[in-house]
Amino acid sequence: MDKEYVVGVDVGGQTTKIGIVDRRGEIPAQTVISSKYGPDEGEKFMDAVCDTIKSLAAHIGMEQIQGIGIGAPNGNYYTGMIEDAPNLPWANGKRVFLKQYIESKLNVPVTVTNDANAAAVGEMTYGAARGMKDFIMLTLGTGVGSGIVINGALVYGHDGFAGELGHTNAVRHNGRRCGCGHDGCLEAYASAIGVAKTAREWLESGKYPDSVLGDIQEITSKDVFEAALKGDKLAIDVFNYTGKILGESCANFVAFSAPEAIVLFGGLARAGEFIFKPMREAMNANLLSIWKDKIAIIPSALKESDAAILGAGALAW
Amino acid sequence: MDKEYVVGVDVGGQTTKIGIVDRRGEIPAQTVISSKYGPDEGEKFMDAVCDTIKSLAAHIGMEQIQGIGIGAPNGNYYTGMIEDAPNLPWANGKRVFLKQYIESKLNVPVTVTNDANAAAVGEMTYGAARGMKDFIMLTLGTGVGSGIVINGALVYGHDGFAGELGHTNAVRHNGRRCGCGHDGCLEAYASAIGVAKTAREWLESGKYPDSVLGDIQEITSKDVFEAALKGDKLAIDVFNYTGKILGESCANFVAFSAPEAIVLFGGLARAGEFIFKPMREAMNANLLSIWKDKIAIIPSALKESDAAILGAGALAW
Repeated sequence: MDKEYVVGVDVGGQTTKIGIVDRRGEIPAQTVISSKYGPDEGEKFMDAVCDTIKSLAAHIGMEQIQGIGIGAPNGNYYTGMIEDAPNLPWANGKRVFLKQYIESKLNVPVTVTNDANAAAVGEMTYGAARGMKDFIMLTLGTGVGSGIVINGALVYGHDGFAGELGHTNAVRHNGRRCGCGHDGCLEAYASAIGVAKTAREWLESGKYPDSVLGDIQEITSKDVFEAALKGDKLAIDVFNYTGKILGESCANFVAFSAPEAIVLFGGLARAGEFIFKPMREAMNANLLSIWKDKIAIIPSALKESDAAILGAGALAW
Repeated sequence: MDKEYVVGVDVGGQTTKIGIVDRRGEIPAQTVISSKYGPDEGEKFMDAVCDTIKSLAAHIGMEQIQGIGIGAPNGNYYTGMIEDAPNLPWANGKRVFLKQYIESKLNVPVTVTNDANAAAVGEMTYGAARGMKDFIMLTLGTGVGSGIVINGALVYGHDGFAGELGHTNAVRHNGRRCGCGHDGCLEAYASAIGVAKTAREWLESGKYPDSVLGDIQEITSKDVFEAALKGDKLAIDVFNYTGKILGESCANFVAFSAPEAIVLFGGLARAGEFIFKPMREAMNANLLSIWKDKIAIIPSALKESDAAILGAGALAW
C-alpha cells in the first residue's frame, strides 16, 4: 500500500509552518516554529525542523511519510538548496543544503522549491486549479510571486529559478523603483506594499481631500480595501489602477503560455471584484482576439492559513 | 528497424516547401509548390501536398516515411487544423483539417503546428539549440514569431496557441499600432516591417539629413542593414533602438521561463552584432541579478533555405 502522508514545510522570514498532510488535503497535525536563527545557525534551524517533523509524525509513524516538501525563499528544485535568501540571516549570502541535510537525518525524500511554486502545486492538487494542466499562479503578498504550470508540470527553467513574473516590466518610462533595483516591475505596483504606496502618493497629491485614508498614519493595503468597501473614491481608484496594471501584465503572460486560467492568491486577491474587475477588463483589452474572454481569472480556493503547508506538502506526492 | 525518413512541409503565404528529411538533417529530396488556392480549394491544396509527397518519396518508398510534420500559419498541434489564416484564401475565416485529411490519404501520422514552433523544434533537433532543454526561439521576419521550449518540450498551452511573444507589449504609452490592432507590440518594432518603419520615421523627422537611406523610395530592413555596414548613423541607431526593445522584452521572457538561451532566426538576425549587441546590453540591464550575463543570445545555426523543412520535419520524429 502507498504511504499515506507527506510533510509540508513552509519557511517564512519569521516563522516556519510544518504540517502532516493526507491525500485529501487534510492536515491532521501541524505546528509553527521560529525561523529566526543567526548567520551560523543554519544547521541548528534544520535540526529544529527535523525534530519537529519527528514529533508531529510520532503517532502515525515516520514509515508512513512518503516525502517532505519544502517551500522556501529562493528554494531551488534542482539543487535542493536555499540559494541566498536575504531575509533569513542563516541563508543570507550563502547556500543552505536543505534537501541533503534533512534527507540524511530523516531518510525521507525531500523536495525543495520557492513558496510561490509550492502554492501553485497546492492549488493544482487541492484547490482552484484541480484538473488544470496549464495555469499561472500569482501570489500577491508583500511582494508578487508566481508559479507557472505548463502541461501539468511546474516550470523550473534551466537553473530552477523560472517564474519571477513580479519582476517583469509593467510600467515603462518613469516606472516606480522596485526592491530588485529596476524600475517599473509589476511587484512595485501589485504587491501589498505597492498598493499602499499608490494610495499614499495619491493622497499626498491633494486630489482626494475627502478620502477616509487621510486620517491614517501608516496606510496598509488592508486599509485601502476597507476604505473601498466604504465607497472611498481614492481607494476604489487605487484598485482600478492596480488591477489595470495586473491585467495588462497578464495579457503578456497569456501570450507566452496560453494558460486556461490565472489564479490569484494572497492579501490583494481578497479585495475581490475591486481588483478582479479592472484586471479582467485590462487583460481582455490587451489580448489577441483568439484569447479574448477565454482566460479565467479566479481566486485561490485554499484557506490562507493552510495553503502554505498544503502547497509544500503537495510537492512531495 | 526504425523508419529512416520524415517529411517536412512548410506552408507559407505564397509557396509551400516540401522535403524528405533524414535523421542527420540531410534533405535528399525537396520541392516547392504554390500555396495559392481559392477560398473553396482547401482540399485541392491538400491533394497537391499529398501528390507531391508521394512523388518525392517514390524512390525510397512511402513505407520508409515515419511521419509528416507541417508548419503552417495558425497551425494547431492539438486539433491538427489551420485555424483561420488570413493570408491563405482557402483558410481565411475557416478551419482546415490538415492532419485528418492528409492522414486519411497517405496513412502516415501527421503533426501540425505553427511555423515558429516548427523552427524551434528544428533548432533543437539539428541547430543551435541541440542539447538544450530550455530555450526561446524568436523568428524575426515580416512579423515576429516565437517557439518556446521548456524541459525539452514545445509549449503549446491550453489551446495550442502559446508562444505569441511578438504580441507582448514592448512599448507602453503611445506605442506604435500593430497589425493585431493593439499598440506597442514587439512585432511593431522588431519585425522587418517595423525596422523599415522606424528608419522611414526617423528619416522624415529630418534629424538625419546625411543618411544614405534618404535616396531610397521604399526602404526595407535589408537596406537598413546595408546602410549600417557602410557606417550610416541612422541605420546604426535604428538597430540600437530595435535591439534595445528586443532586449527589454527578452528580460521579461527570461523572468517567465529562465531559458538557457534565446535563439534568433530570420532576416534581422543576419544583422549580427548591429542587433545582438544592443539586445544583449538591454536584456542584461533589465534582468534580475541571478540571470545577469548568464543567458546567451545566439543566432540560428540552420541554413535559412532549409530551416523551414527541417523544422517541420523534426516535428514528426
